[in-house]
Amino acid sequence: MNSYSIGVIGLGVMGRNLALNIERNGYPVAGFDLDEKQRTSAAEKFTGKKMTVCPTLTEFVSLLESPKKILMMVPAGKPVDAVIQELIPHLAPGDILIDGGNTYFPDTERRTRELTAKGFHYIGTGVSGGEEGALWGPSIMPGGAPAAWPHVKPILQAIAAKVADGTPCCEWVGNGGAGHFVKMVHNGIEYGDMQMICEAYYLMERVLGLSAAQMGEVFHTWNQGDLNSYLIEITAAIMTKKDERTGRPMIDVILDTAGQKGTGKWTSQVALDLGVPAMTIAEAVFARTLSAIKEERVAAEKVLPGPEVHFNGDKTAFIEQIRQALYAAKICSYAQGFQLMAAASREFNYGLNFGQIALLWRGGCIIRAQFLDKIKKAFDDQPDLPNLLLAPYFRTAMASHHIAWRAVVSKAVELGISIPAFSSALAYYDGYRSGRLPANLLQAQRDYFGAHTYERIDAPRGQFFHTEWL
Amino acid sequence: MNSYSIGVIGLGVMGRNLALNIERNGYPVAGFDLDEKQRTSAAEKFTGKKMTVCPTLTEFVSLLESPKKILMMVPAGKPVDAVIQELIPHLAPGDILIDGGNTYFPDTERRTRELTAKGFHYIGTGVSGGEEGALWGPSIMPGGAPAAWPHVKPILQAIAAKVADGTPCCEWVGNGGAGHFVKMVHNGIEYGDMQMICEAYYLMERVLGLSAAQMGEVFHTWNQGDLNSYLIEITAAIMTKKDERTGRPMIDVILDTAGQKGTGKWTSQVALDLGVPAMTIAEAVFARTLSAIKEERVAAEKVLPGPEVHFNGDKTAFIEQIRQALYAAKICSYAQGFQLMAAASREFNYGLNFGQIALLWRGGCIIRAQFLDKIKKAFDDQPDLPNLLLAPYFRTAMASHHIAWRAVVSKAVELGISIPAFSSALAYYDGYRSGRLPANLLQAQRDYFGAHTYERIDAPRGQFFHTEWL
Repeated sequence: MNSYSIGVIGLGVMGRNLALNIERNGYPVAGFDLDEKQRTSAAEKFTGKKMTVCPTLTEFVSLLESPKKILMMVPAGKPVDAVIQELIPHLAPGDILIDGGNTYFPDTERRTRELTAKGFHYIGTGVSGGEEGALWGPSIMPGGAPAAWPHVKPILQAIAAKVADGTPCCEWVGNGGAGHFVKMVHNGIEYGDMQMICEAYYLMERVLGLSAAQMGEVFHTWNQGDLNSYLIEITAAIMTKKDERTGRPMIDVILDTAGQKGTGKWTSQVALDLGVPAMTIAEAVFARTLSAIKEERVAAEKVLPGPEVHFNGDKTAFIEQIRQALYAAKICSYAQGFQLMAAASREFNYGLNFGQIALLWRGGCIIRAQFLDKIKKAFDDQPDLPNLLLAPYFRTAMASHHIAWRAVVSKAVELGISIPAFSSALAYYDGYRSGRLPANLLQAQRDYFGAHTYERIDAPRGQFFHTEWL
Repeated sequence: MNSYSIGVIGLGVMGRNLALNIERNGYPVAGFDLDEKQRTSAAEKFTGKKMTVCPTLTEFVSLLESPKKILMMVPAGKPVDAVIQELIPHLAPGDILIDGGNTYFPDTERRTRELTAKGFHYIGTGVSGGEEGALWGPSIMPGGAPAAWPHVKPILQAIAAKVADGTPCCEWVGNGGAGHFVKMVHNGIEYGDMQMICEAYYLMERVLGLSAAQMGEVFHTWNQGDLNSYLIEITAAIMTKKDERTGRPMIDVILDTAGQKGTGKWTSQVALDLGVPAMTIAEAVFARTLSAIKEERVAAEKVLPGPEVHFNGDKTAFIEQIRQALYAAKICSYAQGFQLMAAASREFNYGLNFGQIALLWRGGCIIRAQFLDKIKKAFDDQPDLPNLLLAPYFRTAMASHHIAWRAVVSKAVELGISIPAFSSALAYYDGYRSGRLPANLLQAQRDYFGAHTYERIDAPRGQFFHTEWL
């Protein structure tokens, strides 16, 4: 009796795989799911291990060691509140609830506050790495009530991915909703990464006419260099996969309409709320919404004018330019994500450690990449770095990559190939490095029609002026 | 006694000017404001007119004809709820409350529902045109409880701007939050317009080195053609205004840091919620957030590499290309705004009439422009037009403008000049007219790491497939 180290509620693939991962690392696990099918399916997978699946919540909770640790892997939103309400009568002060779903961070703020007030410990944690990651080592980003952390640290660090020196990709992120905030930004960055890889593919396919196999080789080569990352690796693999039904490359038979879940959208919306220029991430989300109106696009293609696509330059040289564009744009997208986390850390008092966050993302998660070592080093060298672009490594990278990037965007514009993330990142880069932008005219307009006032270049900041324009 | 046609609560410049406009059109007005200074100041302006300012809410309400009509011009959010709560004890069923502020549309949905249930009539109306517009004829976009409309229609149409044939820029927009939704999108489009004019200015100033006076002439000329609009007109005027303190052009002494109020941000956030690709409007909002970090930009300019800016082409030809780029990008930004309203109309059952909305914006408001006649015609000809770009006039405009637009974006990219709205609009245009986008790769990636499934080009929509990639 009560000999299980931790309980998992929600035995879908993510919950089940996390449970298996925990058990493999030496901690007996009890599982519960409202759905009998899920319970049966999990029970089969758990056979022969120090694991059990309970038919009732009461039995499930009674099997756990005190303080009881319960990991909820249920859909974000009302289901989490429902599970918490069901659990509370079974809990004693000091027990620990962990939400491992993709919860919107203000919900985690609220739950941490409410459950802390009741004497419980609450953690909202990001978990990234998909189903395989959950089983073999995800990236884990816990936040919430700091007093909860020592109780679950051994388990979460044991199951997390490890970087080369053995450091786990799991460390305490910060107060309240910090864990879910950082996970949200991770996903926003993931949206950006995926869209930018799609744009690189689009250019090679549409402009250069490369076959899937040829692109597979290109991505495979790229994965040996600066772009080394999980997403480039799987893209290379995707390009070589054949469709069993038609024998054609799989990539050629998949419909070009992307779905979107909440996290990329939230990242963009929160960036707007906090006034952070994370436009490249937003463009990646908007690109999905544009992809979704497939029928409209097919109809529009027939009537809207654009240039003929033809290319008679050096294909190998252009591929290298695309690689450089992808790397430069990627740096800008990450710069935006880290700016957003910095703004949130100030606004919500999260106390985020940006170098450590880069390390959390170094393994296990979808955006894992060699490149994150450079980010970690940048923030280790200068914890208050205002923007990733200003770190020596990244400045140097921009210096050596921006010409090729410009050539790629320019060529796409000329040929009518839509690459919104590449373009937006470049406008961000050029805007960020402009001491003077044209917002002076904007302020003049606002003062003209709405008496909104403006600041002057020859007066201290915070002093506002109005002109009688008429 | 009770001989005033309408009451106005909130006697700031907007409320005061609307009150003066109403009285000038033959309707006696009572005014109230919690702030004694505002009351005194308004009372001075109201002297000699059929207007009064009341020291208490009780007296204010008692002076109004039944059914009582009360226009609230108070800051959006809690102040509106507070005023409503104060008013309710003084009202009888059938009385009419009108919120003329920049209220977030879900608040108007809620208030319309709550007050209708109590037997009152509620209207949430957009009012655009700034302070001068309020006085001489704004654009008015009322929505809420349809039963309220006949009571206030004569007054609101009397004070509204009129187009050339005398039609008022005020017509019932739709149910619930429709009026405030449409006003929000108006403001989002205004953000886009302003940003794109700034980018045109930026190119002329940075690339061509034109003086403010020269640019004033350019904008003045542009105002005679397709770009004819209030914002181009005032931009021409701004360029010729001299700073009294220094004698320099006013535009050159204004600091390039723009503020933002809620409406542009809301438009972008709602577009993300509804899955509408309104990225150009979002880029305009993000451009303001980038402008706001002035000190960071000044520091970044010293260290981040970019190209030298030099231009040795034909300046006159480039100015014409910029004009064409501005017009083409503007069409795309409006296309996005109307797509957003169409999505909202479906989602919230607003029953919007897009041609009529274009007419409402034809006069009085900040984005008023000749161009809106073309939009009105497009929707009159085809009320279910899926996208403005597909209407014959706009297709033709894109055909004749897109080459110049590409040349401008390409040149800016080459020279390192940030024009995010021009670029984003072009990526939108090229994406919209692409029957095939690279989202097939994105779906492959999602299916690879998260088993999210995908659709196939050779299977019916709505049928989902999964591949075992490993």
